[in-house]
Amino acid sequence: MAATGTEAKDLENHHNDCFIQLSNPNIATMKEDVLYHFNLSTSTHDFPAMFGDVKFVCVGGSPSRMSAFIRYVAAELGLDHPGKEYPNICVGTDRYAMYKVGPVLSVSHGMGIPSIGIMLHELIKLLYHARCSNVTIIRIGTSGGIGLEPGSVVITQQAVDECFKPEFEQIVLGKRVVRSTSLDARLVQELLQCSSDLNEFPTVVGNTMCTLDFYEGQGRLDGALCSYTEKDKQVYLQAAHAAGVRNIEMESSLFATMCSACGLRAAVVCVTLLDRLRGDQINTPHDVLVEYQQRPQRLVSHFIKKSLGRI
Amino acid sequence: MAATGTEAKDLENHHNDCFIQLSNPNIATMKEDVLYHFNLSTSTHDFPAMFGDVKFVCVGGSPSRMSAFIRYVAAELGLDHPGKEYPNICVGTDRYAMYKVGPVLSVSHGMGIPSIGIMLHELIKLLYHARCSNVTIIRIGTSGGIGLEPGSVVITQQAVDECFKPEFEQIVLGKRVVRSTSLDARLVQELLQCSSDLNEFPTVVGNTMCTLDFYEGQGRLDGALCSYTEKDKQVYLQAAHAAGVRNIEMESSLFATMCSACGLRAAVVCVTLLDRLRGDQINTPHDVLVEYQQRPQRLVSHFIKKSLGRI
Repeated sequence: MAATGTEAKDLENHHNDCFIQLSNPNIATMKEDVLYHFNLSTSTHDFPAMFGDVKFVCVGGSPSRMSAFIRYVAAELGLDHPGKEYPNICVGTDRYAMYKVGPVLSVSHGMGIPSIGIMLHELIKLLYHARCSNVTIIRIGTSGGIGLEPGSVVITQQAVDECFKPEFEQIVLGKRVVRSTSLDARLVQELLQCSSDLNEFPTVVGNTMCTLDFYEGQGRLDGALCSYTEKDKQVYLQAAHAAGVRNIEMESSLFATMCSACGLRAAVVCVTLLDRLRGDQINTPHDVLVEYQQRPQRLVSHFIKKSLGRI
Repeated sequence: MAATGTEAKDLENHHNDCFIQLSNPNIATMKEDVLYHFNLSTSTHDFPAMFGDVKFVCVGGSPSRMSAFIRYVAAELGLDHPGKEYPNICVGTDRYAMYKVGPVLSVSHGMGIPSIGIMLHELIKLLYHARCSNVTIIRIGTSGGIGLEPGSVVITQQAVDECFKPEFEQIVLGKRVVRSTSLDARLVQELLQCSSDLNEFPTVVGNTMCTLDFYEGQGRLDGALCSYTEKDKQVYLQAAHAAGVRNIEMESSLFATMCSACGLRAAVVCVTLLDRLRGDQINTPHDVLVEYQQRPQRLVSHFIKKSLGRI
């Protein structure tokens, strides 16, 4: 039987939609999927009803920052009203926090690649079970800058490792696996345009170095362990700068790898809290740091409004 | 002038005391040290007054578990009373939570090596600035078991990497550095004896494999990405078992490396939530998991009581 006009259009739309592609054939055959670190399960929660309309996922390290973000974006999208609450969806666990308003999901990921990795495995399966389509995911975080005025925002062109290569190395069943860390180039330009629209703070596009350690791994001189000199540190950071690195954080490479492997359009937008060429300690006044941390939120919120045609 | 009897005894005691040894000469010359992720600073907090009496530090992933632990150990040590509160010392940040009662400090570290690493750098500096001596530090955590009944407790003999080697590899200024992951052998035996004293749950001494990923890194078949078979997984986990590995978690190797480098007597005590030879998902009822997670707390609390001569 030939498809009716409406069915044909549905099929066509469906065909153009970009769904989550798990790189694991096992999941489709599981009767139940327990997302342990979210305290959510397909047998106790209706994922399509809870999350089916999600189009934008914003992730960041701190639970309170991601809670503040959902309030902010709700107000910006006109979805807020007096007395409205945004309960933590991951109730019963303190591993991660998750908030939702309209098409926006806001999730914390803790600090470092292993922590964001657990979250992303479970988040990507959540979006898959919920049959979400055309999802954009953006990490909004903090970082150390290289040669930038503190408070500058960096939109990541490439996430690179400690040797400045756009690669992520992982051990799977005891063997080294190297994966690429590509990000969506068009999304980078769209976000840069949003920053121009706003014209509120300096924003650059640059490479982001992702490390496994905050102190020795980033050449800091103020950790409990340090076996190199200020000069060694400067040589290393200058080499990073020469390789196009403009900021350093601890999650971008795995974030890029996993999102790209599962068909998610992804970007990383981080504010720099200090210039690492000038120091290691973060001793800027608290209220200034709070304002800095709102900058990626303002940029990404503007991007979401624009994407939804609200501007 | 010759020392008086008391002075000589003080000097002798002082000489026998084991202080924190930072592996970084820079710290002693710093005017101020901001422990950013604790929201504490030497210029705004009196570390010797706040922490100088600390003899036992217990660390674990979850902030709420570490809050529950301080209440439990306070009651066990007879330091609790109705209405007593245990405020979070790291107020103003949600990166970590820290609680104290008497000589016991309880600190959360999040999930994974980078997250526990940031915490340990700042914790070790905190203990150094506070001029603490003779400190024992124990990680009380959760893990996946290999060939053990769920709920069994593993006291770590050696923390090993994904290739079962007792090593921790780190990138410092872009170069690979390999460090040993030795733990205090006598402390292992003391803790094992405490479990015998209690006689409440099965406890073994074994190697602990520390990975950077919870899903592919531990051979799970239920992540968003998986490119191997059940058989491949079983071969890998059986090889781990043959190498003496009894449980898998995500922090022990760096914990062992850093504590040993800074003169801290350290141990890792983790309960196993499931047997990985039989499955990947954690779908045990919530109340059973809660009881499992109390087991390392009970064991370590008993150890502290015994060390203080309260038993």
